[in-house]
Order: sequence, then structure tokens, then C-alpha cells
Amino acid sequence: MDEASPGRATDLQKAVEAAFSIAESYRGMGTLASYIPALAGVDPRKLGLALVTGDGSTYVIGDADEPFSIQSISKVFMLSLALGHVGATLWNRVGREPSGSPFNSIVQLEAEKGKPRNPLINAGALVVTDAVIGNRDADAAVDELLLWLRERSSDESVDINEDVALSESKAGSLNRSLAYFVSAFGNLQNPVDEVLAAYFQQCSVAMSCRQLARAALHLAFDGTDPTDGRAVIPPSRSRRLNSLMLTCGHYDNSGDFAFRVGLPGKSGVGGGILVVAPGHGAICAWSPGLNQAGTSLAGAVALEALIERTGWSIFA
Amino acid sequence: MDEASPGRATDLQKAVEAAFSIAESYRGMGTLASYIPALAGVDPRKLGLALVTGDGSTYVIGDADEPFSIQSISKVFMLSLALGHVGATLWNRVGREPSGSPFNSIVQLEAEKGKPRNPLINAGALVVTDAVIGNRDADAAVDELLLWLRERSSDESVDINEDVALSESKAGSLNRSLAYFVSAFGNLQNPVDEVLAAYFQQCSVAMSCRQLARAALHLAFDGTDPTDGRAVIPPSRSRRLNSLMLTCGHYDNSGDFAFRVGLPGKSGVGGGILVVAPGHGAICAWSPGLNQAGTSLAGAVALEALIERTGWSIFA
Amino acid sequence: MDEASPGRATDLQKAVEAAFSIAESYRGMGTLASYIPALAGVDPRKLGLALVTGDGSTYVIGDADEPFSIQSISKVFMLSLALGHVGATLWNRVGREPSGSPFNSIVQLEAEKGKPRNPLINAGALVVTDAVIGNRDADAAVDELLLWLRERSSDESVDINEDVALSESKAGSLNRSLAYFVSAFGNLQNPVDEVLAAYFQQCSVAMSCRQLARAALHLAFDGTDPTDGRAVIPPSRSRRLNSLMLTCGHYDNSGDFAFRVGLPGKSGVGGGILVVAPGHGAICAWSPGLNQAGTSLAGAVALEALIERTGWSIFA
Amino acid sequence: MDEASPGRATDLQKAVEAAFSIAESYRGMGTLASYIPALAGVDPRKLGLALVTGDGSTYVIGDADEPFSIQSISKVFMLSLALGHVGATLWNRVGREPSGSPFNSIVQLEAEKGKPRNPLINAGALVVTDAVIGNRDADAAVDELLLWLRERSSDESVDINEDVALSESKAGSLNRSLAYFVSAFGNLQNPVDEVLAAYFQQCSVAMSCRQLARAALHLAFDGTDPTDGRAVIPPSRSRRLNSLMLTCGHYDNSGDFAFRVGLPGKSGVGGGILVVAPGHGAICAWSPGLNQAGTSLAGAVALEALIERTGWSIFA
Repeated sequence: MDEASPGRATDLQKAVEAAFSIAESYRGMGTLASYIPALAGVDPRKLGLALVTGDGSTYVIGDADEPFSIQSISKVFMLSLALGHVGATLWNRVGREPSGSPFNSIVQLEAEKGKPRNPLINAGALVVTDAVIGNRDADAAVDELLLWLRERSSDESVDINEDVALSESKAGSLNRSLAYFVSAFGNLQNPVDEVLAAYFQQCSVAMSCRQLARAALHLAFDGTDPTDGRAVIPPSRSRRLNSLMLTCGHYDNSGDFAFRVGLPGKSGVGGGILVVAPGHGAICAWSPGLNQAGTSLAGAVALEALIERTGWSIFA
Repeated sequence: MDEASPGRATDLQKAVEAAFSIAESYRGMGTLASYIPALAGVDPRKLGLALVTGDGSTYVIGDADEPFSIQSISKVFMLSLALGHVGATLWNRVGREPSGSPFNSIVQLEAEKGKPRNPLINAGALVVTDAVIGNRDADAAVDELLLWLRERSSDESVDINEDVALSESKAGSLNRSLAYFVSAFGNLQNPVDEVLAAYFQQCSVAMSCRQLARAALHLAFDGTDPTDGRAVIPPSRSRRLNSLMLTCGHYDNSGDFAFRVGLPGKSGVGGGILVVAPGHGAICAWSPGLNQAGTSLAGAVALEALIERTGWSIFA
Repeated sequence: MDEASPGRATDLQKAVEAAFSIAESYRGMGTLASYIPALAGVDPRKLGLALVTGDGSTYVIGDADEPFSIQSISKVFMLSLALGHVGATLWNRVGREPSGSPFNSIVQLEAEKGKPRNPLINAGALVVTDAVIGNRDADAAVDELLLWLRERSSDESVDINEDVALSESKAGSLNRSLAYFVSAFGNLQNPVDEVLAAYFQQCSVAMSCRQLARAALHLAFDGTDPTDGRAVIPPSRSRRLNSLMLTCGHYDNSGDFAFRVGLPGKSGVGGGILVVAPGHGAICAWSPGLNQAGTSLAGAVALEALIERTGWSIFA
Repeated sequence: MDEASPGRATDLQKAVEAAFSIAESYRGMGTLASYIPALAGVDPRKLGLALVTGDGSTYVIGDADEPFSIQSISKVFMLSLALGHVGATLWNRVGREPSGSPFNSIVQLEAEKGKPRNPLINAGALVVTDAVIGNRDADAAVDELLLWLRERSSDESVDINEDVALSESKAGSLNRSLAYFVSAFGNLQNPVDEVLAAYFQQCSVAMSCRQLARAALHLAFDGTDPTDGRAVIPPSRSRRLNSLMLTCGHYDNSGDFAFRVGLPGKSGVGGGILVVAPGHGAICAWSPGLNQAGTSLAGAVALEALIERTGWSIFA
């Protein structure tokens, strides 16, 4: 394992550069998330990588400062907020086990009577969003998320891409189906349209690699922001989020990602992948081309190469 | 995270004792694996705990030196042997993703045409055993496993409990069904009876907590035995085994175990749970009473309490 | 098989009376379709029975002239209309096999990529309704159905119960989920809301036993109205409708109904059951209490007793 | 519908010839049941057709007197025998609903805890065979079947093709898997090997179209042999067999067969299809080439054409 040392910053910068260089040959490979027109228009050759360590040092390369649609990465932050609002009662409404299914599968929902298998598949994320809304409305939940993301990333410019949000809503038949299904079992307390409105907005938040890595930094330090020592969330919540990302963060590709990268992470169909290296830092890669499981192809390559070099795998 | 220090041994001994003490109030709770008569006869109040660290220090308490039926824990060692024999070609025959299903589910097998979801569910373990047998016979595979376990645990007394093996075979309808199903899709190269013979034997190996923890120690040090510096298996195989244990080691309870204990582990219906703490050591708990997912109830409590005290969660 | 004879009318009247008498002891048993408030308010002791034969003779008893909500019985008539509009191309969009599943199951839909198993489960009926709408709107489709039902039943009073339609729409989360799911796979050409509007209306048509039996009479005579010799629909369509009712008309209770009653039939959660006796006539029973599969409990008893007496089982 | 008339025999002979002629252009199409070597060696161009009416008249053409492997057609006769032995208690162990699945699916079995969906899929047929064995052995059950088939077909030459039986047993991994699965849930009272021995034998009975049609004649007359007026089985059992053949006789092709042919029937992967025309007679077609659902391709064409000409569809 790595130790703080005079040459550490140089080493990390070199590791980021090497990882980027390896991933570059995968630029433009994979497929864009074509079902959302606003995402299909993104330049497929974009590639960015950002790493933030415990002392706040940030290492970036490529398109690391270009905002992209965070999509399902938002599920991690919303889950953190929901656990803050309703605590462990959330687990009466959504499970905590890997689903072994694609992100949008409805089969498990029927077998388990409207209780989604985990909060990182779409059905579970809808329940989480409903919990964040609580007795308020969709706007209140989205505002809470934006405030949180701006504070955590120390960047007031984080905002929603309304074109993407509209595009999501228009193309959202499957998510509507999932929401009505969950609702039919009494597992949404707010109207389906309200929950979907918030959900489409949260998916449409635009952030850069740098912002996302910074926003997740506390998850690498047991819930505490290492730059100021402030306890952002309790340790147990931080560990819960990390363990869910490890086991469920990439749908039916979670097992493979766990081996290849060896760190908790969450991917989004916008091409972003956020990973947490406990005790070390947070990392975000972005490249729009996706593999079959909806995970960024070049992004995963970059992360695999980077962790290979840093030795931060939690399994080693 | 813990650091080597003069008082470390004392701290670990205290942590083991505290964990044991907490788990004691769960002695006798849960249910025995009644479908195997030879297991149903075990004293339900047994409780043992053993921890081995990188310098070879061993901390034990309770029934830590009493051999018990390792059952599915054998899957981890057989997987390691299979990867040694056939390498990555194994993944053409078995997947690497969590199944989201009980250990004996056959549904996924049909949908995926006889390719088990992962090597730690029964169907996948049968394929693994077939790969270890290779062009030999069941006895050769079982002998190889025994040799490996004796060498890794530095204890020549490790052996098979033939009563349990017979009992397994008699009660093995579901495993027979799984084996014939996999075979029907051409995914076994040896006769079903040969594969099952080896499988029932491997499940019937009897080992103590101390022996199991010692045997797995190299998995906590990237495949190298820290006591002599010998590379037992390649780092990539060690990480693969750890990541599979983390995501798939406890069937449809894997997500919960990952959060509660925070370490890669594998449970067996004999009541044993083996866990690996990368960079720190290996631990084994044993108590025969099982929870609904087939994991030792008091054993999981002991491990949770122990890792809480050592701070070895990979998610913190 | 029975033959026309002087005493036939007396025999049939006696058979209807005997069947009614047997079914009376089941009045009020079973459960009302509570998820639709407007249906939950119906008197559970209602019981009606009507039989129409080839010469137009009608035998009625009990509440045979009281309109009730036809619900899923509408699926048969809409299917007939859809086949008239688009012919066999319909089968590219919906299957013709029993589903082995409850009426509202979504599991099969996912496995078969949005192509419902048959047109008599809800998902399939939504596709059928979409086909009837075609390039028109929901109202045009509903008007076409009403005109057809009025003409076929020779009764201009057939109409929609708007309270029920509103109630359906409010309680329609599961149907909305199914519709969005089918739509997500591109299997609806009209907007989901338009299709659902028509669907909720068609389910809310109110008809009496007498009207329904008369409306289906042509299905007992290979598509020809036996009272005037007019070919209402082609023989092949009539046989298709009958065979689909026999194999799929009662969801996961279809096999049992086929044995007990021995005739093609379609049940609705309003408590109506319409059956066709090829070569003999059409029959409708109504009683609101449902069995576990959503079929009228007393209604099925009445039909079983009636067919026992007439000897009209197609399996004898 | 047809009426007895002087020219009836001539008409039926012409109908049989016309149907045969139409089916001839499909000779050799489809695929042989390659997984059983002894079946894969049959001449794919074989085509036979036999029709027996209530007066015992028999109309045959082509290879109607050549014995072939009856395979799953045996399930109907074994079901009749089982109902004779254990009556309605059989339905505690096996359902009566269409499965919506291929003949060898195991998914439903797991969801329904080892109770097969119906007695005409393989898993259900294994339970039926177990019930026929009862407290005897496999040979006793097979002997009972042979005696029954010889008596019903008035032909003492009916026998088992032992080459096929051996071939079945060797290739029987999937059936073994199903049997062990059912057994694991306690739904077999005899040892798996005993049940499988009987099952492989019953599937390997060799009969000709003429023999099979004659053996099923009583099913067309409510359980009574019309040639001698003897009640072979009770009417309720005869109707049950017919309704199960209609709804479940062709696995996931049952709905289509019901429409195309319009009669209860049972297909076997040996290429035979047995159908029952209530009130008219029994028919058997044979041609080895199978469609995707495992039903004889040319055989189904012949039957469709024949029933088109006789007007015997139960849906018209």
C-alpha cells in the first residue's frame, strides 16, 4: 500500500497520466446512450479523469473539467440524503442485495411485490427519490440535492441541464413503467409524476470529473471531509454507501467491475464512473461510449489502469 | 487504520475476546442444516473464533480448534485450484456476477443456458470441481484439495469426514439436479456422478477455525504467504477470489454481509465463515446455527463485532 | 349431443333453473374486486344467468337483466374488432399462447421484449386496443365498440358507466405500468394515455347477462348470426376467438375452467363470465364474488352445472 | 358439422387423402429430435395418417402402419392410468394449468416448490409415472401401460423399442435433473432411478398411427369404446384428458395448435401427433421433422387440412 512520501504527488500525477494514455486508445469505442437524444449528441471521443486525495490535492487530465450528465451517479448522493431523512426505515421499502439483473429489470419487482432489490437499480432509486421528497415536492428534493452537490464539490456552478431533463422525460417510458409498478404495490408515497419529475432532474445534473471526485471525497474517509475534518455523514452511512456501490453499483456488471477496479463505484449512462478509494481518495472518469452493461468503456479502462498503479484495490 | 505497535497483540486478543463475548448471547440461535443428518447432530451451542495476522500470530477463543464441516467454504479453495489448472478459460463456463438468488437456485441456469452465474453458488461450484478433476478422477481432485489445505494450514491432520460425505450424497437430490442440468447443456466434461462424488467430498472436509484462517492467510497479502514471503498464488488470482467472496460469498445475503462485516468472506452451512482482511490477516468464525440465508448467525455477529474493533472494514 | 326436439325449450329452461339453484348457495362468497372502488360497492349477492340459442330463444333467470361492468370480457370484442382492422399482422405484436401467469403479470413481457403472450392478458389487451384506435383517437375506438355491442346485442341501451371508468383510471397504476412497459419496447403506436383512456372505457361498459350472451351468439355459429344467417365475422376469426378464450380466457385458471365448464369463455373482475357453446348457443353468468384467479365463483358454479345438464362440453 | 350419410365413408377417405397430399410437400422439413441418437436415425421423409371413427372404420394412408417412438404421447395414457390409481389426489402433486414454457423448463418448478404446472410437461409426467408405479416397481408400471395399449389398440404387437429406451437413458440429463429437482421437494415417492427407468421405457413404446388412433378412440366418446359400448374410463376422466391435451398438449405451442387444428391433441418428439375429435373419432399423424416447439411439422399440416375438411373443430 502507498504511504505518504515526498514523491507521492509526482507518482500520482504520473499514474493519472499513464492511465489516461492507456484509455485513450478506447476513445470513441462503445455505444452512446441513444435512448436519450440529448446524450446521443455528446462527442464520443471525450475522455476525462480526476483524482482527489485526502489533503485536497487534485490530479486531472483530459476533459476533467467539462460537465457531463451524471445520470445514475446521482443515485448515490440521493441515497445518502434519503438515509439522512428516514434512516434505516428506508430498508423496509428497498433491499440491499445485488440484483443480478440489468438496471431496468422489472422481473424481480414482481416476484418481490414491489420492493426493489437495491437502491442503485432504477426501481430502487425511484423509492429513494420518493423518500427524499417526503412531504415536500419534487423541486424541494432537487434543490436539496443541488445544494448538497455544490457544497460537497465546493463549486456553486453545479446545475441541471434542462435539455437533458426534458429529453429524459420524453424517453422515460421504462422508468414510468417501473414507477407505476412500484406505486401499484403502495411503495411510493408521492404521486408517480412528482417522483418521476425529481428523478429525471437528478439524472440530468451536469458535473465534471473534478466536481464529482471532490463531492465524494468524504466517502473515502469514513464520512468525514479530510480537508477540514468535518463529519459530513456518519461512518456507518459512508460504509453502507461504499458497500452498496461495490456490490450493486454497476448492475449485472458489478462483479466484474469489483475485480477489475477493486473499488466501490457507481456508473452512469452519461459515461461517468465515480469510485471511492477508502483511506486514499475519490476518483472520477468520464467517457461517453458504454459497454453492454451501460458502464463507460474507456472510463473503466482508465480506472483499472490507475488503481493498478496506485495499488488501492480493497482486495489486495 | 491500525498500525503495528507494541500493544497491538494485546489489542487484537482483547478484540477477539470482546467479539466472542458479544456472540455468546447468540449461541444456539438459528437453525441447523437439517437436510444433512450428519450436520443436524452437531451441538448448536458450539462457538469458535480464530484470527491469524501477517506475522503468523494467531488469536483463538472458544471452540476454535474443533474441526467442523467446511461445506461451501471449500468452494473458495477449489476455485483457486481450478484457476491454477485452466486459468481464465474457466470464465467461459461460469460467470462472475452476483446471482441475487439462493445458493441452490436453478432459475438463472435455465435463462443462461447452463452457465452458472458465479463459482460460489452450487451450480458454479460443480463446474469448478469438474475443472479441477480435469482428465483425472474425483479422488485425484479431492487429494489435491487435501494436500493444498494441509500445506496451507500447516496441519497434516486435515481430512474428510466420511460420515458427512455419505450423508451429503444421500441427501443430495438438489445438487444432483443442478449437476444434471449443467451437464445437459454440455458444461461438465466429466460424468455427473464423478463430479458429484468429488463435490460431496470437498464439502465434507473437516477443519477448525484455526486451520481455515491459516489456510486463507495468503489471500490477505495479495497471494503471498506473509510468514515466509512465498508467492502462493498470483496477485490477480488472490484479488479475484476476494472480490468474488465479497460480491457472491453469501448468496442472497452477500450485500448485507458486505455492509455488516465489510470484508470478503465465504460461509458454509456447517456454520463456518471465513473472512479475509486485506493487508491485515484472515479470520474464521464457527457456530452451527444458521440465519435464513444459510450463514452462521452467531458467527456473523462475532465477525461484525471483531471488525468493528479492528477497523479493518475495506469500506472505511 | 342434443338435437332440436319439442321438449328442448322446456329442458333448457329447466337446466337454467337447476344451474341457478345450485349456484345460489354460493351467492356472496368470494371477494369483490376491491381495487376498483366503483366495483367494490356492488351487491355481492347478485346472481344472473342467460342462455341464447341458435333460434334466438333466450332463457334467463335471476339478475340476468341488470347491467354490470363487463371489464375483461370487453377484450374479446375488442380483439374481434382489431382483427377486422389489421388482420393477422396483429400477431406480430402479440402472441397467442397461454401465459401461465396472473392477468397483470409483467415478467413474461420483459423476457419477450414487450410482446405480450396473448391478447387476453392486460398487456396484450392494451396492444389490441392500440390497434383498434389505429390512426384515430380513443373516443373513436370506444364508439366503435359501443356501436358493435349495441348492434350485436340488439339493444341500444348498452353504454359506459363513467363512474367505473373514472374509478379504473384512478386505480390504474398497474395497467399504466404495463402500458408504459409495452410502449418502451415500441409496441404501442399511440400515446400511452390515449390507449389507457380507451382501455379504461372499454372495461367500464355495462351490460346485462342477456345482452352479453346475445352479443356473442355468432361465435357459437362460426361467425354467423344464426337468427338471420348474416356472416358477422369470418369463420376463421370466430374459431380463433374461441380457441383463445379456451386456452387463455381465465389467466392462470384457464386449464381448470376448460375442464370444469368445457367451453371457451372469458371472465371479468366485474363478476361476469361469457361462454360460447359451438353449435348450440352463448351463455352469460354474473355474480360479483371472485375466486383467487379473479373469476366469478358462483358464476363458474352455475356454468358448470348448466353445461353438465346440456352436455355441451366440447370435450365430450 | 358432419352427419352420418351413405357417402360419409367416401368423404372421409377423400379428406384423409387430400390432407396427406397437402402434407406431402412438407416431408423432410423441420428437424429431427437429434438429442436422442436412436430417433435421429429415422427417415425424415416418413409420413403417415390414420383416422378411426365411432363405428370402428379406419382410414389410413402413407406410413400409417409403421411403428414409431410415441415419446410424450405416452404421457396421456400414463395420466389416464394414474388417475385410475390415485384419483383426484394426483392434483395435490401436479397442477392442471398451461405452463407457457417449453417442455423441459425447470423455472416454474422452482417458483412453485416442486409441483409441476401440468402432467403433460416432462416434470409433471415424471410425477404421473411415479404415481403409476405406486408401491410396485418400474417394470410393473411399464407392463401395465403395455397391456393397456395392446388392449386399447387391439394389437398384441405393441412393444418397447429397447434401443430407443437405452438411447433415452444415455441422453437423459435434463430429465434426470427434473426428476431430482422434483424429488428434492419430496414430490416423488419412488427412487429417482426407478421413476426414470419407467419414464424412459414409456417414451420408447413404438406404435403406428393406426394403433394410436385406435387406442385413443374412447376419448372421443366420453370414455366409452364406441365399437362395443364398454365404459373404458369414466366420462369425467375422459374430459379431463381432452381438456388437458387442448390447453397443455403442445407445450408453448398449445395455443397455436388449438387454433390451427381445433382439437385436443398430444405431440411427441418422435414426430407423432394424436388428436381426439369428440363425437367423431381419433386421428394420428406421423412425420419425424419437428417445428421449433417440438411438434411434427408435416403432421400438424396434415391434421389442419383434415379437420378443415371434416369440420370437426371444437371451436366451430
